[in-house]
Amino acid sequence: MEQNTAIVIFQPSGRRGHVPLGTTLVEASRLLGVDIEAPCGEHHVCGKCKVRVEDGIFDKYAIHSSPDHAGPIEPAEEEILSLEEKHEGHRLGCTATVQGDLLVYVPESSRAGKQVVSKAARKIDIDLNPGVKQYSVKVEEPTLEDGMADLERVKSALESNYGLSSLTIDIYALRSLPSIVRSSHWEITVSVWMDKEIIRISPEAGCRGYGFAFDIGTTTIAGYLCDLGTGKVVGTYSTMNPQVKYGEDVVSRISYHMGNPGGLARMSSELIAAINGLIDKAAEGNRLDEDSEVATPESTIIRAEDILEIAFCSNTAMHHILLQLDPEPLGTIPFTPSIHGSVNFKCRDLGLHAHPAANAFFLPSIAGYVGGDTIGVMLAETPQSSEKIQLIIDIGTNGELVLGNKDKLLCSSCATGPALEGAQVEFGMRAAPGAIERLKIDPKTTDVDYKVIGRNAWRRYSKPEEMKTKGICGSGILDVLGELLLAGIVSKGGAFSQKARASDRFRENPETGLKEFVLAWANETSIGNDIVITQKDIRQIQMAKASIYTGCKLMMQHMGITHLDSIKIAGAFGTHIDKHLARVIGLIPDCSLETVSSVGNAAGDGCRAALLNREKRKEADQLCKKVAYLELTLEENFQGELVAATQLPHMTDRFHHLDGERILSRE
Amino acid sequence: MEQNTAIVIFQPSGRRGHVPLGTTLVEASRLLGVDIEAPCGEHHVCGKCKVRVEDGIFDKYAIHSSPDHAGPIEPAEEEILSLEEKHEGHRLGCTATVQGDLLVYVPESSRAGKQVVSKAARKIDIDLNPGVKQYSVKVEEPTLEDGMADLERVKSALESNYGLSSLTIDIYALRSLPSIVRSSHWEITVSVWMDKEIIRISPEAGCRGYGFAFDIGTTTIAGYLCDLGTGKVVGTYSTMNPQVKYGEDVVSRISYHMGNPGGLARMSSELIAAINGLIDKAAEGNRLDEDSEVATPESTIIRAEDILEIAFCSNTAMHHILLQLDPEPLGTIPFTPSIHGSVNFKCRDLGLHAHPAANAFFLPSIAGYVGGDTIGVMLAETPQSSEKIQLIIDIGTNGELVLGNKDKLLCSSCATGPALEGAQVEFGMRAAPGAIERLKIDPKTTDVDYKVIGRNAWRRYSKPEEMKTKGICGSGILDVLGELLLAGIVSKGGAFSQKARASDRFRENPETGLKEFVLAWANETSIGNDIVITQKDIRQIQMAKASIYTGCKLMMQHMGITHLDSIKIAGAFGTHIDKHLARVIGLIPDCSLETVSSVGNAAGDGCRAALLNREKRKEADQLCKKVAYLELTLEENFQGELVAATQLPHMTDRFHHLDGERILSRE
Repeated sequence: MEQNTAIVIFQPSGRRGHVPLGTTLVEASRLLGVDIEAPCGEHHVCGKCKVRVEDGIFDKYAIHSSPDHAGPIEPAEEEILSLEEKHEGHRLGCTATVQGDLLVYVPESSRAGKQVVSKAARKIDIDLNPGVKQYSVKVEEPTLEDGMADLERVKSALESNYGLSSLTIDIYALRSLPSIVRSSHWEITVSVWMDKEIIRISPEAGCRGYGFAFDIGTTTIAGYLCDLGTGKVVGTYSTMNPQVKYGEDVVSRISYHMGNPGGLARMSSELIAAINGLIDKAAEGNRLDEDSEVATPESTIIRAEDILEIAFCSNTAMHHILLQLDPEPLGTIPFTPSIHGSVNFKCRDLGLHAHPAANAFFLPSIAGYVGGDTIGVMLAETPQSSEKIQLIIDIGTNGELVLGNKDKLLCSSCATGPALEGAQVEFGMRAAPGAIERLKIDPKTTDVDYKVIGRNAWRRYSKPEEMKTKGICGSGILDVLGELLLAGIVSKGGAFSQKARASDRFRENPETGLKEFVLAWANETSIGNDIVITQKDIRQIQMAKASIYTGCKLMMQHMGITHLDSIKIAGAFGTHIDKHLARVIGLIPDCSLETVSSVGNAAGDGCRAALLNREKRKEADQLCKKVAYLELTLEENFQGELVAATQLPHMTDRFHHLDGERILSRE
Repeated sequence: MEQNTAIVIFQPSGRRGHVPLGTTLVEASRLLGVDIEAPCGEHHVCGKCKVRVEDGIFDKYAIHSSPDHAGPIEPAEEEILSLEEKHEGHRLGCTATVQGDLLVYVPESSRAGKQVVSKAARKIDIDLNPGVKQYSVKVEEPTLEDGMADLERVKSALESNYGLSSLTIDIYALRSLPSIVRSSHWEITVSVWMDKEIIRISPEAGCRGYGFAFDIGTTTIAGYLCDLGTGKVVGTYSTMNPQVKYGEDVVSRISYHMGNPGGLARMSSELIAAINGLIDKAAEGNRLDEDSEVATPESTIIRAEDILEIAFCSNTAMHHILLQLDPEPLGTIPFTPSIHGSVNFKCRDLGLHAHPAANAFFLPSIAGYVGGDTIGVMLAETPQSSEKIQLIIDIGTNGELVLGNKDKLLCSSCATGPALEGAQVEFGMRAAPGAIERLKIDPKTTDVDYKVIGRNAWRRYSKPEEMKTKGICGSGILDVLGELLLAGIVSKGGAFSQKARASDRFRENPETGLKEFVLAWANETSIGNDIVITQKDIRQIQMAKASIYTGCKLMMQHMGITHLDSIKIAGAFGTHIDKHLARVIGLIPDCSLETVSSVGNAAGDGCRAALLNREKRKEADQLCKKVAYLELTLEENFQGELVAATQLPHMTDRFHHLDGERILSRE
């Protein structure tokens, strides 16, 4: 590489590239397709372009990032940044310059094009029977003749009115008891967790109580704020998992822990901070009558203290890292988790923002690579209660598979890697404005048409400069491979075909020597460079789809079945997936397309079900024991099947025929 | 008072007096009989005389103390004190001077004559069945075929080896699990609390576990460190309750809370800090083979993390303040506590130094003024299992009384005040070197002989300057009143008699106008002033003894009994009490002296029993329900009885005869 450039990596977007020395960080972010907010026009006054320069050696990128590599702190920064911020490596993006390799974290507040995370809560039927319930009681006032203590009075009232017995009380609830019973004239509402522990004493009758269900993904965190009294989802919140800077998949997170003392605590606390960020946003942003345009009085704002329980689902590694359980055994044979069963801890012991006596509930983990998120998927999709044989594919940074029905359930995990989410692909990016999300290729002319997030018009209906294209996100990537295949530009083996070589979009990169195909020309982009798909990118996508396909196939073989009643594709990726193309590239087993459906973030739905219905928690622990785990890599024919599955299916007339139908259905 | 003096009060000793302006705090402490450590000879270099000047209005002393009243901070102090110390009001006693009224707290490290707190653990029989038990297990190692998680393996081993089921686990224990099972090759010791919760995973077989039993008195904190494996008391520790600066009895603590926002949290955290001080001292000071003179290896030192449970007993107000439960209702009719039942919280939630997963157990409280300490006394003395009718008098800053046998139990509380502990008496002081602890008066000459703590020889066998007398402690105070009465110096009503007026030790103080009797002449003291007992002092002691006597009498009347099988005097005061004199002044009901015994700190013994035997915890909760509480102040004849009881008994020949025997028995 040239001597007068340095490598700059922006997190959490993951965009990286060589940037000329002396470039400001804001300029560098534009070159790499990451927009940093700079409302003052880079006049060094607004402080909105604040970023953090990380300090350390980042093996995975082979760079050494240091605050020194961003030049000395300038007077404008001295004025705007606090001592603490400077100490933590914060800089102004408009002022600091690239003087060496840098890993730069762009806080959410400084991101111009906010990430589009699509993890909406679906409408699923949940019988309301939450872990925390509220009981209103009128308590007998003490007299000199009846000197019974406050707590014993409350317990006696709860027992005679609601049959609750042997209740314990959290210290925080006990501390609030004497003043609240007196100020509210002995009429109170008691919040009880699992009919076991008194966690809150409230003065009002019928006072509010909320719960949060969190799906902690390797890449994305999604949270659902629910009213425990009605079961209604009051708000949906999501953000990036800040751990992405330590590696995009769970294995690299485990490696980071193993190679860095304090790494586990750091990853855990960053994750907790991100979760707390969502809780705080929910607490700030939510008013009871959110549909109303009328300003609501102060008292109806939801506060963090109104959150009485938090339920979590995640893969086993995220579960362990969040709880600061050593994830090292997950990374080595026999991949043993610290704990299977569901578990409850006090939110305060984990540093979570909630009522001080609130509990955090964690769904059980099935195995080292099949966690509470898969249990969540099953709680939502209930294959365990169905006669029909279902295959559920939960596609995230890791892929989890569930196969079976009420008689037998099998699960497994496959290392898809983040390619299908847009990472580890040259111009891959996460779902954010400017990302190619839909794409088609004319088989005759090999011309490309596409659509980006944030703009409704396709390329062919736009002027080039209107596109402001930045890269390709997950759903776009599946389209790219499918279309390249359908247009005959790549062959069954994944290599560029003779037909490709005839296209003016095909070339061999003189610098990397890699063959590549141009998807968007430089004048259509906001980064000033052609956006291409490389031969290496195609291999990554082939590997990802092969690993899912192999998993499905081996599980079916293992169970001795050839027919599936339905295939459900879960995960944020699953929401956008084109099921025709999924079959075209061989991501899913061959099947009738009517049986394939997208179920969105089923893991999050299942977690919400556990928050709102305590019977679902029992079911979760039963499922955890019932479902068998298949370690795919130990199956005799795994390697052979995997290699075979990297091949792309033969293009037949049937596919070309279907394609017309597909194109129509998508527009 | 003179214009050129100011009031200085030293805490925790409680000594106070007028001191000339300009006096250094070390000089002032000498004038008032409080020794501050000053090893460098007041050359402003060693920093050992560090004290803290309190800021605020102290209603109970009618003074306004302020750091400004100790003069500006001198250069020597600038050098020695940290910024934080200066901010907190710390000064060097040798350098700061009296410029106005001051309340000065002398930290234990700066006290020259360390308090002698006599709260030794007695040998009582306790069946060893502690709340925390240790189980050694060999756990099956996981394999690819058997992928069960670490925790489920440990639980399975505990169930098959020890029949323990449905165990939960503390987050801290879970965090340590994966690395400990692996490093110790799957042979571990598991500490389980109440057969319910796994709180510690240890690598060694037969590893140590300790518990602490604390008796939190209004004035004194006593702690007993016990080996949970043997039940042996490994060490006894005690210190002053730092809350004494907010008032000497529970009512003034409650008032402090009511009058000062944040007062409850402040009192609680100071108490917790004092308890932690004892735990740290125990952890530092204890080595396993403490009897051996050979230095023990580092690994046998007891660490705070080895403390797996802490049991507490205290009066209800201390219980509430420690737990930060609003004590205000305890101070107003109908004196309702927040909670009766025994209760467990995590030590970490209370800020206690111990294993991070350790639990703190609190004995139940019977009523607003009869707390877990009285339950502790009953657990140790077991009137509930006896045919014989016992009267147990626990004398502390508050007096608690228990009367009855296995058929019926009655308890009550009387406000003795701290006079019997040496406070609220002009020259009263706590049990420390220089305190008069024994005293006798020659009825013929009215001459006084006495003994001080820290010196074996009595006054008559010493040169005056050898005595270095400073004041009178609790046991001395009882002697003073008994001897004044026996010698005919005070009359039945408590007034100085004609005989007193003939003595050269009697005088009327020209300043206060109070009649007083000299116990030690100035040349025998280290404070340069005569030590006297005043008419007001005698009234205080009369009130204290009257309140106990009245309580005993009303309880006997209430229960309809006139005969007692035994009288037990408990409390630190009870250890030193002269039972003859207790009857002479009418502290206890008239009885045969053989039936009277001292049982020492029975509350602490009972607390230790609860720590070491979980059945005692059940018994405690049963007792709490069984024992009836008598509110003495509501008894019809309370005031009349109380006034009558302030009278001192008629001196009869029988007493004079007994007196000879008594003197002999004591020397």
